[in-house]
Amino acid sequence: MITSRDVARLAGVSQPTVSRALRGDQRVSEDTRQKVRRAAEALNYVPSETGRSLSTRMTKRIGVVVTDLTNPFYPHLIGPVHDELEAHGYRMMLFTERDETAVTSQRLLDRSIDGVVLATATVNSRLPEELRSRELPFVFLNREGGGQSGDAAVVDNELGGRLVAQELARLGHREVACIGGPPETTTGRDREMGFRLGLSEAGIALPESSVRRGPFDFDTGHRLLEEVLESRPTAVFCGNDVIAIGALNAALRLGARIPEDLTLVGFDDIPMASWAAFDLTTVHYDLSALAQAAARLLVERIESDEESGPRRTRFEPELVLRSTHGPPPR
Amino acid sequence: MITSRDVARLAGVSQPTVSRALRGDQRVSEDTRQKVRRAAEALNYVPSETGRSLSTRMTKRIGVVVTDLTNPFYPHLIGPVHDELEAHGYRMMLFTERDETAVTSQRLLDRSIDGVVLATATVNSRLPEELRSRELPFVFLNREGGGQSGDAAVVDNELGGRLVAQELARLGHREVACIGGPPETTTGRDREMGFRLGLSEAGIALPESSVRRGPFDFDTGHRLLEEVLESRPTAVFCGNDVIAIGALNAALRLGARIPEDLTLVGFDDIPMASWAAFDLTTVHYDLSALAQAAARLLVERIESDEESGPRRTRFEPELVLRSTHGPPPR
Repeated sequence: MITSRDVARLAGVSQPTVSRALRGDQRVSEDTRQKVRRAAEALNYVPSETGRSLSTRMTKRIGVVVTDLTNPFYPHLIGPVHDELEAHGYRMMLFTERDETAVTSQRLLDRSIDGVVLATATVNSRLPEELRSRELPFVFLNREGGGQSGDAAVVDNELGGRLVAQELARLGHREVACIGGPPETTTGRDREMGFRLGLSEAGIALPESSVRRGPFDFDTGHRLLEEVLESRPTAVFCGNDVIAIGALNAALRLGARIPEDLTLVGFDDIPMASWAAFDLTTVHYDLSALAQAAARLLVERIESDEESGPRRTRFEPELVLRSTHGPPPR
Repeated sequence: MITSRDVARLAGVSQPTVSRALRGDQRVSEDTRQKVRRAAEALNYVPSETGRSLSTRMTKRIGVVVTDLTNPFYPHLIGPVHDELEAHGYRMMLFTERDETAVTSQRLLDRSIDGVVLATATVNSRLPEELRSRELPFVFLNREGGGQSGDAAVVDNELGGRLVAQELARLGHREVACIGGPPETTTGRDREMGFRLGLSEAGIALPESSVRRGPFDFDTGHRLLEEVLESRPTAVFCGNDVIAIGALNAALRLGARIPEDLTLVGFDDIPMASWAAFDLTTVHYDLSALAQAAARLLVERIESDEESGPRRTRFEPELVLRSTHGPPPR
């Protein structure tokens, strides 16, 4: 295998100079750098990342923690995070939330990564606290830290929920139901809270018997629609699009017509929401921009030499009116 | 930060003994190992993976290369691969195909991973050749190596295509069309080849004008359905479920009834295929078992001391008859 020694010999410089030159160290002249680069190219030499990271104490790797990759929501976040990190010279390592315990005890904390994007995790997760105590930078993506502060790229989830409530009220709905996300997530909580506030302002009650909650997945909507229909609502607000699409498929199985018999509204506006089979009315925000903002906040935190307080990028949601809403049936 | 020096002091042993004990080195007695473990636990010490990998030459990381994470097909492969690798003590690093060039020149080849799962890549990709020349183990997942041999976990894609042709012939279709996957992928090629062979056996022609091909994504089916309908087929075979679901949504927009006006068949049986909105007739195989088999082949290759020829695990597909097929319209 070609080593930096071979490159040094060909370039006529010392071995440490090769490492410095390939690292872009400013102490190496531009001339020497060019010479080393040409020699490395000629020999098809690939610097060892493991060796490099020991000398610079930077692994150039970022961990990204998500709940579950099979959820159609995450891939749309991960792509932009990946690209943004790549543009800054970082590589993404993916962790699913199932790993969270393993993660705390081993993987994220062994200094083989430079920082963490928390694209999920429950409010009472110990992970942010652990990361902080080990001084490993992290950023919250699409979640607040619960009681914990930290850099975050977030959507105004409460406003989104409120917009839905206002539209349902405007359409004349009085009996509404909700299939919300997990109550231990800030997205789940805030969306439901905004929805409740908006309903309350319009004088509409949302009894606990008309509310179900579950993971942000297809199965939650598919399984729970029948239960919330027992309270005979004319409209159901779902905690995200994936839940809404589950509910929509359950409605199809039950023979309920959307929106003639039932209004269904989601949240996130993932690409699937606009497919003809669904054409889902939902809450839109710029998912890619959100993901990129989180990646950028983290990179800036890692590369900054100064201590500074938590920073936050907040996105405004808006309602997208497609085909799954209408006035209540007579 | 707690170092192995602190652990050594608390355990009353030398620093190299700490490293050896935590690595499970057999030269360290069971007694000493216990002592070191307890000390490490008491101090909440996490060994540095970077340091460890230099001493053992194993990074315990595996690269997984996919085309595009936003394709609903991949997450269902990645989950099982991730879990199987985890069960063997390996961590997954994800690479998308866009990275392939970057990958060859840098990331996969700098010895920061122990092996690669090629869950995609085109037939003429140079990546397998590069990996081989650098003696980095790899496995093909759901693709043959094209001309190149190597360990592989594959589906009998040709048989799957043939099963679809036989069913269409049995139903009485004579005018059929195909929206296939990329011709530079073995999955795309083999599925179309099997379909053509099956049609040919039944005396049904498939003129090139009735065939379109594109990436294995929603947009391919959505965009190309209208084009293949120009030849007035009564049935369309799609290279995978994601293409079929794209075509199905396009049919909805065009007002074509499925299956009364048009039969649509996919391939893969991803979970989405069985959603009520689609209820897609498709070719089924055990996606999770396939992914696990690939991970296992790779781990065995990495951990085996013996040289051995390429090994192959092959899965048999079968037709799942749901709601998108029927006899041709009169």
